[in-house]
Amino acid sequence: IETKLPKVGTTIFTVMSQLALQHKAINLGQGFPDFEGPQALRDALTEHMNSGKNQYAMMTGIPRLREQIALKTEKLYGHKANIDTEITVTSGATEAIFAAIAATVRAGEEVIVLDPCYDCYEPAIDLAGARAVHVPLDPQTFAVDWDRVKAAITPKTRMLMVNSPHNPCGSVFSAADLDALAEITRNTRILILSDEVYEHIVFDGLPHQSVLRRPELAARSFVISSFGKTYHCTGWKVGYCIAPAALSVEFRKVHQYLTFCTFTPAQWALADIMESDPQHYLDLPKFYEDRRDNFRQLLAGSRFVLPKVGGAYFQLADYSAISDMDDLNFCEWLAREGGVAAIPLSAFYETPPASKLIRLCFAKSDATLQAAAERLCKI
Amino acid sequence: IETKLPKVGTTIFTVMSQLALQHKAINLGQGFPDFEGPQALRDALTEHMNSGKNQYAMMTGIPRLREQIALKTEKLYGHKANIDTEITVTSGATEAIFAAIAATVRAGEEVIVLDPCYDCYEPAIDLAGARAVHVPLDPQTFAVDWDRVKAAITPKTRMLMVNSPHNPCGSVFSAADLDALAEITRNTRILILSDEVYEHIVFDGLPHQSVLRRPELAARSFVISSFGKTYHCTGWKVGYCIAPAALSVEFRKVHQYLTFCTFTPAQWALADIMESDPQHYLDLPKFYEDRRDNFRQLLAGSRFVLPKVGGAYFQLADYSAISDMDDLNFCEWLAREGGVAAIPLSAFYETPPASKLIRLCFAKSDATLQAAAERLCKI
Ligand SMILES: CSCCC(=O)C(=O)O
Ligand SMILES: CSCCC(=O)C(=O)O
Repeated sequence: IETKLPKVGTTIFTVMSQLALQHKAINLGQGFPDFEGPQALRDALTEHMNSGKNQYAMMTGIPRLREQIALKTEKLYGHKANIDTEITVTSGATEAIFAAIAATVRAGEEVIVLDPCYDCYEPAIDLAGARAVHVPLDPQTFAVDWDRVKAAITPKTRMLMVNSPHNPCGSVFSAADLDALAEITRNTRILILSDEVYEHIVFDGLPHQSVLRRPELAARSFVISSFGKTYHCTGWKVGYCIAPAALSVEFRKVHQYLTFCTFTPAQWALADIMESDPQHYLDLPKFYEDRRDNFRQLLAGSRFVLPKVGGAYFQLADYSAISDMDDLNFCEWLAREGGVAAIPLSAFYETPPASKLIRLCFAKSDATLQAAAERLCKI
Repeated sequence: IETKLPKVGTTIFTVMSQLALQHKAINLGQGFPDFEGPQALRDALTEHMNSGKNQYAMMTGIPRLREQIALKTEKLYGHKANIDTEITVTSGATEAIFAAIAATVRAGEEVIVLDPCYDCYEPAIDLAGARAVHVPLDPQTFAVDWDRVKAAITPKTRMLMVNSPHNPCGSVFSAADLDALAEITRNTRILILSDEVYEHIVFDGLPHQSVLRRPELAARSFVISSFGKTYHCTGWKVGYCIAPAALSVEFRKVHQYLTFCTFTPAQWALADIMESDPQHYLDLPKFYEDRRDNFRQLLAGSRFVLPKVGGAYFQLADYSAISDMDDLNFCEWLAREGGVAAIPLSAFYETPPASKLIRLCFAKSDATLQAAAERLCKI
């Protein structure tokens, strides 16, 4: 059988997690915490599961969860989303990204993606019969080079995908980025897909610059987030999409035939915790900032050079002083010989630059970070 | 925004469930049980959730669950599926159906669907840029008319979708159907998508005629099933796909970017219950046969005519003796005035026949069926 997705192999996350298992390496590759979220969340799930919440949820998500999402969104970003027409609960952010693209991008159109970027963007674009146009981030700061984005726009451009806080680079949008985004999309038919799954993990006292802060941007955006990162349960696979009614109508047409709805007891439990513990996500920046600072401190004696991290839970590390292997070979070597699994940055690029960078996940317990850092300092 | 799915509105299941709520009608529309699955299943979920199973599962599903699926499949159908290369756990059967089509059907190709059929088939075909070719089932018996299927095959035919036990009609495949299916697909490049989500609900002592019983068919098939129907938890959204390695490779390329993986604790819990209670699904035919027989008995005094039901948990009902409204109007009227929500059969057709049939779900407690039947006998 001839493949429809010739570029797609097994995701780098699966490859590196398997390598970690095989070599008993400490897994700082695939992005997931090795600690648990609040017990109250799990208790709520058990309670709802044992009181009859096991059948199909509404296709758009249970109303209580959409209500909590709307409340949070208004409180944090000043954006009032209509719970009936503008918020849809999905089976993780991945489903939401796929649905937004499948619902609005047509064969022959173009979608601008900013490299490096998360690996699920391009296959969704390919399956829509569209073309991903890759624009690199600034190789030093990993900020968006808006002039290059502007230059990449053609009459076929249907969508621009942005991601702040950024996976894998940890860069975050400033208010000026929102200005630039508004300016280059004004008076165009370009839709924005804003992947904001790390919205609650922004450091150094800065606010998360959601596109929802600007009505002009919100009016043309699919804003996608997820509970997995916020509540330390990446395996729960509950996400959501906020989009204006006209876009949500199209989004839901695809969502209802992609998964229809999402594990019902988790929706009730997440609504409960959002209501009972609204402080949880407000405490998250500090929680992860401490980990970032601790991890960087622990690596201070290593030969890695560490770029700045403004958000999300990944630390890039430059290994130029250690090896001239390419980053995939280096990661394989590191898992095997160094006992630490990482992700090669090139996996997130169409055309990787010459830089020597790997991604390390610091959503790990102190003990894990300590043990990994010890190993990383030895090489 | 111009829609990519002009034929898609809100699913009939959502429409009728909302109507049921609004009119306080007994909901025999959307197919879900109003009773619970085994407590042991929920207890297992709680246990796994509280012992650290909350991060991403493997993209293909946890090995233990794939193992249990393989054991069952061999025991029931004599088909040995390789757990590493041929079984993939999905976020419900809906995701699996979408992924199989997206992975293998190309723009310009044709997919044969047998009307009436479940409403998620055609949108997935449309989004692949392909064309659904509708072939009606026999309007009396709801069996497949294989001559008509054969006549619909063209050089563009890439896939044929079959569904036994059948939703909405309750017809089931015989061994002769498998013969016919093998014969018309032999020496073609036609793939089979076999929707077998009601595999454990076949009545009258007959075996489920899975396409997996025939190596020749298994070699070209995506066989899709789900745990929601079997364990009375339609809101859990865990399904799976069995396909030969070459097809599974393509299937997984899409699955990994559609949802990546599925609520981890439910996977562990389902593996547990399959292992500890292998009798559960063997008892299911009798469990639902009793409900079928009871419901038909209760409706014996009504003016509805009831076609035979060989499997699944739906009873068609002919209302010609009651009204000459079309079936959508009749269902609206029935929810409003009769206090019972049903699904109009026309919703499952591209070109509905003149028949006057509605679908009633009998996956309901005795009390619900009794109350609904009382109302249905009055009209
Ligand atoms: C779906 S596995 C990848 C998890 C993740 O978000 C990452 O590691 O970047
Ligand atoms: C996803 S809602 C539809 C449920 C169902 O399988 C049916 O009613 O046919």
